[in-house]
Amino acid sequence: MTDTLVLHEFSESGNCYKVRLAAAMVGKPLDRREYDITKGETRTPDFLATVSREGRIPVLQVGDRFIPESNAASYYVADGSNLIPTDPFDHADMLRWMFWEQYSHEPNIATLRFWMRWLGPDNLSDLQRLQMPAKRQAGNAALKLMDEHLSRQEWFVGGSISLADVCLFAYTHVAGDAEFDLERYPNVVKWIERVKGDPRYIAMDS
Amino acid sequence: MTDTLVLHEFSESGNCYKVRLAAAMVGKPLDRREYDITKGETRTPDFLATVSREGRIPVLQVGDRFIPESNAASYYVADGSNLIPTDPFDHADMLRWMFWEQYSHEPNIATLRFWMRWLGPDNLSDLQRLQMPAKRQAGNAALKLMDEHLSRQEWFVGGSISLADVCLFAYTHVAGDAEFDLERYPNVVKWIERVKGDPRYIAMDS
Repeated sequence: MTDTLVLHEFSESGNCYKVRLAAAMVGKPLDRREYDITKGETRTPDFLATVSREGRIPVLQVGDRFIPESNAASYYVADGSNLIPTDPFDHADMLRWMFWEQYSHEPNIATLRFWMRWLGPDNLSDLQRLQMPAKRQAGNAALKLMDEHLSRQEWFVGGSISLADVCLFAYTHVAGDAEFDLERYPNVVKWIERVKGDPRYIAMDS
Repeated sequence: MTDTLVLHEFSESGNCYKVRLAAAMVGKPLDRREYDITKGETRTPDFLATVSREGRIPVLQVGDRFIPESNAASYYVADGSNLIPTDPFDHADMLRWMFWEQYSHEPNIATLRFWMRWLGPDNLSDLQRLQMPAKRQAGNAALKLMDEHLSRQEWFVGGSISLADVCLFAYTHVAGDAEFDLERYPNVVKWIERVKGDPRYIAMDS
């Protein structure tokens, strides 16, 4: 018997979309529970006590157990599928891009997107405003590294789509929301179209 | 035939120590190449062209291929060992703590350690200085979450030491370098002693 998978999420978050896209790509059903993070719905005593002590989404619920962290939840969903390379080097290389996404991509591109689109430019703290140029620069450096890599190969790891592509796709394809100009990164644009062309692809707002 | 493993590193970096500690725990030899990041030795044209386009360490070299990102390199070294749980939930839970380490722990505790110990308090930029209180608060929140988790179990995942413990240990046990007071987190202190008590343990300066 397989445990039901429940995704606790804010559906406009790219981190949550990763888990849904991975599930679609491997044909696994997900129950979805929506929380509006802009209204504090992940900071209620009940949410903190049962779903996440940190008040964050996404959290994947597997039966009565919980997996926070988008890339770990996506891995659980895709485990055993052809999104996860079995060759040890390729597997580590996939994890490399997923750790890089969380360290060098998400804190810049996703954070600027949240600040600009949900908080709004007029509601930022002084510290947030001061951090924006460094995040803009680091976000462009991340897109440049992706573009260089994709000038040499079609997918991030090996010869086919892997979980690294799924996890990197989530915030890259909406980087325009944070006013990153994707046209400067033509190999990234072509890769976005390749991901969208996969017959199992689902859009972020679906 | 097994490829030689070469670790390109700055040995006082906790991220580099993770890979050495994982290798020691699984009994794999590592060749070590030292670069002084404070003298720009990872920003030379040769390093950027051959080891890492980002000018970062650690990078694990496997034959003539390279794996950046400390937690991915550590995974490669430990792959197939008893540091990596085989149960799918436990495996994802291990990755959860490793992604959490890179997102919520390292950017606060390791960054403050680098700023205070290597750059020096008098040499910080205004932006760095302004970020310090938020990093201090987030670093303490990370240690508190670890302490709560370790009040319920001896190791981060399941009933024995895993790669999650190795990766979290690296910067936690030297958090005092960044003036975090570990005595406030008694379960963390006991866990540090448990890791040090493993017969395969090697110290950071060994």
